[in-house]
Amino acid sequence: MNILVINSGSSSIKFQLIQMPSETLVCSGLVERIGEKDAIINYKTDHINLKEILPIENHNQGLKNVVDLLLDPEKGVIKNTDDIEIIGHRVVHGGNAFSNTTLITEDVKQKINEFAALAPLHNPNNLEGIVVAEQLFPNAKQAAIFDTAFFQTLPEKAKRYAIPNKLYIEHGIQVYGFHGTSHKYVTEKALQYLKLKTSKIITIHLGNGCSMTAVVNGKSIDHNLGFTPSNGLIMGTRSGDIDHAIVFYLVNSLGYDLDKVKTLLTKESGMLGLTGYSDLRDIEAQAAKGNEDCKLALEMNAYRIKKYIGAFVAAMNGLDAIVFTAGIGENSNYIREKVCTEMDYFGINLDTNKNDLRSSDIREINATTSKTKVLVIPTNEELEIAKQAYNLVN
Amino acid sequence: MNILVINSGSSSIKFQLIQMPSETLVCSGLVERIGEKDAIINYKTDHINLKEILPIENHNQGLKNVVDLLLDPEKGVIKNTDDIEIIGHRVVHGGNAFSNTTLITEDVKQKINEFAALAPLHNPNNLEGIVVAEQLFPNAKQAAIFDTAFFQTLPEKAKRYAIPNKLYIEHGIQVYGFHGTSHKYVTEKALQYLKLKTSKIITIHLGNGCSMTAVVNGKSIDHNLGFTPSNGLIMGTRSGDIDHAIVFYLVNSLGYDLDKVKTLLTKESGMLGLTGYSDLRDIEAQAAKGNEDCKLALEMNAYRIKKYIGAFVAAMNGLDAIVFTAGIGENSNYIREKVCTEMDYFGINLDTNKNDLRSSDIREINATTSKTKVLVIPTNEELEIAKQAYNLVN
Repeated sequence: MNILVINSGSSSIKFQLIQMPSETLVCSGLVERIGEKDAIINYKTDHINLKEILPIENHNQGLKNVVDLLLDPEKGVIKNTDDIEIIGHRVVHGGNAFSNTTLITEDVKQKINEFAALAPLHNPNNLEGIVVAEQLFPNAKQAAIFDTAFFQTLPEKAKRYAIPNKLYIEHGIQVYGFHGTSHKYVTEKALQYLKLKTSKIITIHLGNGCSMTAVVNGKSIDHNLGFTPSNGLIMGTRSGDIDHAIVFYLVNSLGYDLDKVKTLLTKESGMLGLTGYSDLRDIEAQAAKGNEDCKLALEMNAYRIKKYIGAFVAAMNGLDAIVFTAGIGENSNYIREKVCTEMDYFGINLDTNKNDLRSSDIREINATTSKTKVLVIPTNEELEIAKQAYNLVN
Repeated sequence: MNILVINSGSSSIKFQLIQMPSETLVCSGLVERIGEKDAIINYKTDHINLKEILPIENHNQGLKNVVDLLLDPEKGVIKNTDDIEIIGHRVVHGGNAFSNTTLITEDVKQKINEFAALAPLHNPNNLEGIVVAEQLFPNAKQAAIFDTAFFQTLPEKAKRYAIPNKLYIEHGIQVYGFHGTSHKYVTEKALQYLKLKTSKIITIHLGNGCSMTAVVNGKSIDHNLGFTPSNGLIMGTRSGDIDHAIVFYLVNSLGYDLDKVKTLLTKESGMLGLTGYSDLRDIEAQAAKGNEDCKLALEMNAYRIKKYIGAFVAAMNGLDAIVFTAGIGENSNYIREKVCTEMDYFGINLDTNKNDLRSSDIREINATTSKTKVLVIPTNEELEIAKQAYNLVN
């Protein structure tokens, strides 16, 4: 069964064709700079790896270009569009309506549109991808896989803010959570690996955005991104946790415009605000050369992760394993080592040699004496989307 | 040596006369509703307990009334104002200038005034009390004791936010910490009690404001109130931690005025926002009657404290004791029990019988088998101020 996974962003479409249940990756690609004269299509199969630069007006045209490639007699992988049986769409925000992957109906589309207020940068683009895919693949089943779904199991005490009830009841201001598809994917991989009857684990997703989830027996019970993907850990350009009264101070005492404050905390803060660099590799390189700002920023970054490990251990009253994933989590042995240093209270003891190895497989990097397992698990959100879409239909 | 301790608020003056080094409380009192026609003076010695209602125009007049009482042939405790040798003033915000108690000079007063931007509700009133006391007690030594001083030992990684560096360097936006006099006082009491060579403790101040401090060998290394007393734990009417992007959402999507948002998060949130009640005793009573909002709010309140215990244990990589103090911390066996339930991972095991007892002395409420000590220590900020003022002069 051929499943096309579509992750439609503001000016991009990420796609993968995956055969299920064998989990075979048939092709993958990315359309970038949609709306520009020099848009880019990247496309990869087992024998082709191409990059085309061409004008692409909108998502409709971008996805049409993708379909042309898929159908191309030489470069293609299918004979006609009906060979795609399911399309799995990533949708960032399912609000409080969707606890599971769902087939797309008019009602579902309307709800995705409603929740656009909660994810203005994502949901409209996700919806655009759905509408275009419905036109181009009229006979395929269309499924929505929500980033927020994994967090529907959060108990009230973890989900609610201490703000007036009506903001929750009437306006849905609560913790929704983000990167759910990734947290779910690595959770399942970790539980397969650990083979425990009951389990308490923490999944640490460190990429462009960063978040952590406390997971008891496979179900999320706490998470540190909230109503929006702004708080919690220190990210590339996002501040993570701050005293929210800083917003009032910047406006009332320093004369900032509120929109400027939002931009400042979203695009000019985090590692960039502390160091002038937003890419962790640059920051690690500068720190190695003695840059004090970079050294401090890395310290702060790891310290924040440590504190959330402690907080989630308290939430679970226990800990079996921590799992690092996503770009930074999978590749930065530096951050992993900093996080796992002086954490023996939590039974965390790293094997620094294992930590320094690279691999695209799941791997255990704790010392053999470590009470708590430390795992690195490459995330694969597209495969998770394909799995969920496949399970929904079958 | 007679030390007069003055805590000057917006419409009140709290005072105590303490003899040092014997720590003898000679008299205490409170002037309330300054500026009103029906202001109130409460005054108490070992044989007098009076309450007067009279018009008091301003702090100057209020403190004059206090002096009249102190000098009164019948009710008084001193013969003339020179019998007061030191006046210890509570000052809420010492910015990043004062790591210790200091004698008040023109320069110190100017700095207290500068930091008024950071504590607009407190520093101007504290300064007013100083100016008036200098007039009424021209021969006494005047000392300033800063609430923020205890947090001068916070390392950079705990003190800094992940926001652009210039906001820290040019505008002093950082963690300052609050309730420092209380955290310091109970820390010293706890260390005397525990008699450990090295120690890792967490002090939990739960009153009108709430905050927690991680203390290693008597020095604070982390704290959960920040730039202002807004974030961290759930307080009576303050939200504590939220996703700061909620502020932008309330303004941009729901049309709130920014000042209204500030009021909402400061005066209409926390336990009040969740339950309609701000006094924890009312909330506990309602929860006992089955009120679901109250039950949830208490769950959330204790859960937040538990998570910070975990976070601070990670910060310290260890834990010897937790200390409850201030109004709620000293009196709510309910909250203490909720916080200490299912925390055996941290070696916390409560003796519920001991927890239910009341006493004005320091007491240990953990089970004898508990690895981690759980202490209740009545705070005494006035005595701490007197001690520091005394130590400064001698």
